[in-house]
Amino acid sequence: MANWKELGEAKRDSVNALIPKAWLLPTPLPPPTEQRDVTGKYIQQFLTPREIEITETDAVGIIKNTTTATWKAREVAEAFCHRAALAHQMVHCLHEIFFEAAINDAELLDEYYAQHGKPLGPLHGLPISLKDQFHVRGVETTMGYVGWIGTFEGKKGTGKEKVYESEMVTELRNLGAILFCKTSVPHTLMAGETINNIIGYTWNPKNRHLAAGGSSGGEGALIRLKGSPVGFGTDIGGSIRILAAFNGLYGIRPSSGRLPYEGMANSMDGQNSILSVVGPLANSIGALKLVIKSLLSQQPWLHDPLVAKIPWRDEKEQEVLDIVKAGNGGQLVFAIMPDDGFVRPQPPIRRALDVVVKTIEKLGHKVVDWNPPAHARCNELVFKIWGFDGGEDVHTALGLPGEPMCAPVASFYGIKKEQYTASQISAINVLKRQYQKEYMEYWNGTASHTGTGRPVDAIISPLAPFAAARPDMYDYTGLSAWVNLLDYSTAVLPVTLVDKSIDVVDVGYTPKNPTDEKIHRSYDPELYDGAHVAVQVIGRRFQEEKVLTITEILGDALGKHVV
Amino acid sequence: MANWKELGEAKRDSVNALIPKAWLLPTPLPPPTEQRDVTGKYIQQFLTPREIEITETDAVGIIKNTTTATWKAREVAEAFCHRAALAHQMVHCLHEIFFEAAINDAELLDEYYAQHGKPLGPLHGLPISLKDQFHVRGVETTMGYVGWIGTFEGKKGTGKEKVYESEMVTELRNLGAILFCKTSVPHTLMAGETINNIIGYTWNPKNRHLAAGGSSGGEGALIRLKGSPVGFGTDIGGSIRILAAFNGLYGIRPSSGRLPYEGMANSMDGQNSILSVVGPLANSIGALKLVIKSLLSQQPWLHDPLVAKIPWRDEKEQEVLDIVKAGNGGQLVFAIMPDDGFVRPQPPIRRALDVVVKTIEKLGHKVVDWNPPAHARCNELVFKIWGFDGGEDVHTALGLPGEPMCAPVASFYGIKKEQYTASQISAINVLKRQYQKEYMEYWNGTASHTGTGRPVDAIISPLAPFAAARPDMYDYTGLSAWVNLLDYSTAVLPVTLVDKSIDVVDVGYTPKNPTDEKIHRSYDPELYDGAHVAVQVIGRRFQEEKVLTITEILGDALGKHVV
Repeated sequence: MANWKELGEAKRDSVNALIPKAWLLPTPLPPPTEQRDVTGKYIQQFLTPREIEITETDAVGIIKNTTTATWKAREVAEAFCHRAALAHQMVHCLHEIFFEAAINDAELLDEYYAQHGKPLGPLHGLPISLKDQFHVRGVETTMGYVGWIGTFEGKKGTGKEKVYESEMVTELRNLGAILFCKTSVPHTLMAGETINNIIGYTWNPKNRHLAAGGSSGGEGALIRLKGSPVGFGTDIGGSIRILAAFNGLYGIRPSSGRLPYEGMANSMDGQNSILSVVGPLANSIGALKLVIKSLLSQQPWLHDPLVAKIPWRDEKEQEVLDIVKAGNGGQLVFAIMPDDGFVRPQPPIRRALDVVVKTIEKLGHKVVDWNPPAHARCNELVFKIWGFDGGEDVHTALGLPGEPMCAPVASFYGIKKEQYTASQISAINVLKRQYQKEYMEYWNGTASHTGTGRPVDAIISPLAPFAAARPDMYDYTGLSAWVNLLDYSTAVLPVTLVDKSIDVVDVGYTPKNPTDEKIHRSYDPELYDGAHVAVQVIGRRFQEEKVLTITEILGDALGKHVV
Repeated sequence: MANWKELGEAKRDSVNALIPKAWLLPTPLPPPTEQRDVTGKYIQQFLTPREIEITETDAVGIIKNTTTATWKAREVAEAFCHRAALAHQMVHCLHEIFFEAAINDAELLDEYYAQHGKPLGPLHGLPISLKDQFHVRGVETTMGYVGWIGTFEGKKGTGKEKVYESEMVTELRNLGAILFCKTSVPHTLMAGETINNIIGYTWNPKNRHLAAGGSSGGEGALIRLKGSPVGFGTDIGGSIRILAAFNGLYGIRPSSGRLPYEGMANSMDGQNSILSVVGPLANSIGALKLVIKSLLSQQPWLHDPLVAKIPWRDEKEQEVLDIVKAGNGGQLVFAIMPDDGFVRPQPPIRRALDVVVKTIEKLGHKVVDWNPPAHARCNELVFKIWGFDGGEDVHTALGLPGEPMCAPVASFYGIKKEQYTASQISAINVLKRQYQKEYMEYWNGTASHTGTGRPVDAIISPLAPFAAARPDMYDYTGLSAWVNLLDYSTAVLPVTLVDKSIDVVDVGYTPKNPTDEKIHRSYDPELYDGAHVAVQVIGRRFQEEKVLTITEILGDALGKHVV
């Protein structure tokens, strides 16, 4: 049996070797104490002005150029490959690199345009990065497991190795997108940080003392560094939203069944009490709308048995815009949930929430309180569901080479436990349904006091108790995970940056419990200074169009000062 | 501990005692050998001409009269209560009788109309029967379990006893429906026949040698005897379709999440790999459309977390009608699946399928073959899923008073088995998803040879290998249960009656396996003569409007000779 460490290092080196020499950093990166922030000017120094122009254009701007052949797909692909290579060297955000294939695909797209005088599809020439759960031909899917190297999801000789593609990959290709890299995850996917025995730790590019977040951590870091204009992550407890927030990005966790998960690798695949969902991350809401709308034009419900037949609904966007335009009485109503009663978010988060409330009021909209069925009940169910198999799946995968479990995962899955039985699972599913029903009726009931006749339009709340986690200090996931049990469509709204001069420690605070104390103590204004701060905007099930439109309105009002 | 037999009999007697003396049969019913068929003229002899007129009007006709106050709700309610009382005495089809409450509700509706000059809702004054899984205030839900008598789902002192109502019950009341009885089921719900230790066996009113079917057996028998114009059953393996077919009724198993199951009693509640679904049964497709459309107008997705937000879509009906009207080239295309390769249906079923094929061709539509992914794989998964808890739930319920398990259930659940673990359940869920995906792509692929550019519009197939089961001889459920795994919207189309002079035994047939042999041997033309014969019309997920419209077209063409 080969050594897991050597296997991991060999894989890491073989991927790094795919970076063209010309794109290697000329000198080692200074430590975070010297160069905390590697975004913006720092990474720009390694790029040409033209590369900067291209990579700092958002997805909507890119396709405006690529679908009219104003920009060649090849030039765009190359610029993003270059910048992604730099990003990876700075914060370890890639698992698989396939720049050559991407550039080749881009050339084919350019030829297509030259021949037909029109783009292949609505995403013609748009580079898209993918979390390392997507299967893409030509490369592996390790999901951070050393034991998956050279296999298909841990199995050898399946005939699918480096050939099989996930449903969404096929659809993105049909739409003209260019796939060029797969991004890092914590092995098991079950962590708010990204770390594994292949590429190590994925750092937050805005503040390298902090985590990029997880589990779609590579996406967060890569897109923040503008090494990709848009990418896809997955979320079973916050794994899209956490890193969107930590990196000042927009991102959405759609309701399960809105976008196709078919044919992707996963942890505990087949656990169907809380489904992991796939969703996009980007620097603009426009980019998120663009890729969702494009994917839905592919009718994924015909190719994924779990996808609901819900095309993109422009009218749902329009309904929000009509309310906003209506003026007098035409208000949106937001429920503000500053915390879940268990932990108090750190000062920057509390300030961000205040900023959003003031923005909402300045826009003439309304805020109301939110006193839903106890979140403690919900979170208890979530933790039980995540633990249904007692860790069997992840221990099996880690056991292939005998690699050690990384710390952020070990806090939950470290000790293998007894599996739940069918009866126990059923009992949890019943409690889950009852909680969903109560929450639904609570939400319905708000129609009585919003003043609009409608129930609350969206909830605004923190999605983590901190701006970003410090390494191995992601001590509470309850603020993001309740959304997964309720399957609500939820977007992330970047709000501000930590400012040590304003966001001071609340020295007089008496923590409510040991977890609350950990969160309270882990805030260090000096260390956090400059980090991104965000909140989440929560809509009901399958309200993706509404949630994105509301988030865009708030984002526009907050201004573009963040990224 | 009281004796289960005494408890069951006491319950049975207490329910029977609610039948007004004037409605009791004057003399004992002759045995089936003398009076095989108690429908039509036989039951009519105990009714007034006016009662016959009312009860032999279909739901659409009834509401035409009740929503215009042409008929008083009270008179309609009373007529159906009377006929239901007769039906119950003939075939044992009721678990709960609440005629007094129904007549009282009807009077309130009449008062409402008198006061407001308009009906309360689209179902104003329409009597609706409910399978004994619905909770209705004032009466119990035993689901056939002696141990549930005097409890709420087996538990005492919950405060919900005789007070709590299921979500759909609330909605039906909002719509103006009159609830008057709950119908019989086999205890556990997991059988194609209806039998329990409270009311005994529910017989097929058209041929009392045969089963009414199960598990919504009481609905089948009651509606066939026109003791109810429309009722609701549930289906996790055929439990709506089986008895619709056995009783010559229209019925639909909608896709899961189309109609609200919220707040109903169930077996193995929380098992969410194959969900039981609720759907209506009636003498006409119009009645099914009426109640589904009405229920969806209540926006059940706001009150049941498992319901999809899909209002009734008139345009989906229209699409079918437009195809039919288009004439030349405007064909519907049907896939014909005569069997699943495991058992050969009995002669009447094979003839019924021929009749349907000829009807389709006469109408100018088209039939094609159907060679899907092997159904054996599907059925193996279904049986595993039904057995996830090893029988824990049903043994617990039966164990409350120590009552014996009835034979049709015992063949599957008789011996308690080991429970599946979380990992095993997940593995089955993955196989299920893969099968769904393959079946979906197979269906998509038919677009290449239908000649219409569309994939096959619907599949026509038997839903049981026999016209109706003989007692304790329901030996194969594979023809109905595969639909549940794939979650397809499926309606029952009554076709003909068994004719012993045509449907002769195929003496030369060599059975393929022991089950096939049992099915082959259990056919007795003499015994089956006169029984109803039906097939099922299978559409894709959430195609209820399309499936009902197609079934209506075929039913109209087949003629009204059946009922």
